[in-house]
Amino acid sequence: MAEARAVDDGPQWVTTSAAGTWTGGMQTEVRMRHFPTVVMDEPPALGGADAGPNPMEYVMAALDGCTSVMISLIAKEMNFDLKGFDISADGRLDLRGLMGTAPVSPHFHEVRQVVRLRTSEPPERVAALREEVLRRCPAYNLIKDARVPITSEWSVEG
Amino acid sequence: MAEARAVDDGPQWVTTSAAGTWTGGMQTEVRMRHFPTVVMDEPPALGGADAGPNPMEYVMAALDGCTSVMISLIAKEMNFDLKGFDISADGRLDLRGLMGTAPVSPHFHEVRQVVRLRTSEPPERVAALREEVLRRCPAYNLIKDARVPITSEWSVEG
Repeated sequence: MAEARAVDDGPQWVTTSAAGTWTGGMQTEVRMRHFPTVVMDEPPALGGADAGPNPMEYVMAALDGCTSVMISLIAKEMNFDLKGFDISADGRLDLRGLMGTAPVSPHFHEVRQVVRLRTSEPPERVAALREEVLRRCPAYNLIKDARVPITSEWSVEG
Repeated sequence: MAEARAVDDGPQWVTTSAAGTWTGGMQTEVRMRHFPTVVMDEPPALGGADAGPNPMEYVMAALDGCTSVMISLIAKEMNFDLKGFDISADGRLDLRGLMGTAPVSPHFHEVRQVVRLRTSEPPERVAALREEVLRRCPAYNLIKDARVPITSEWSVEG
């Protein structure tokens, strides 16, 4: 029913899960549902063998993917002319946190997101899409709620 | 130098990055450095084609991988007998947040981490390893700092 969105029948719980096995050094094999195993590792500078992206790169990848889902979902709600987009995320860490050598946050000190949208929509509709995406995106709000300074720069090509 | 750990020469910045392209529906192709492209999608229940794990599953995967790196790193610092371990993470989301149908957090309402360690070490050394891992792990502290209730249950096999 189209009306279903307006009716609140209580929490709609879903559980997202991942299970891993340490395979030595800095390397972990991680499984998600029926998908192929993902290998996470660290570059040699951090003591690893660089057999895969590192875990915090995957957090940035998840931010890209999650924002992307929300752009697609909300564009559909708004009947927004979405031709396509590219998205990137850069997070800055101070290694002293994880190394335990200074009392600083071990996670992001800053995150920059950049979205390059292809659309014929006017600026106010783009701004409305952006605002709703940032309000409802799970990964974006996880980082924001951790009080990490996060920016989201949107630009438009015709 | 072994002494380097004790000297604080200021921030040790590293940037972790990921770039993606929306490929239609709920699907995004994400690139991290030179590694093969990762496909993120959503299951049909959320409007996707299930071509890959969803972004918040990747956040749970990153929590597994990041905790794993920290266990390995700190076990080495402690000269801890680390024979192996398995690790899992489950995060609970209320879909009303991302759907915009109720004013609830769009990200995790609860995260449960489970670590099954293989070691000959006594309980107090395991507790010391656990405490230091939870203090310094980037992904764990990102979730904790977002005020998500997070637990980390450790058990030991000989």
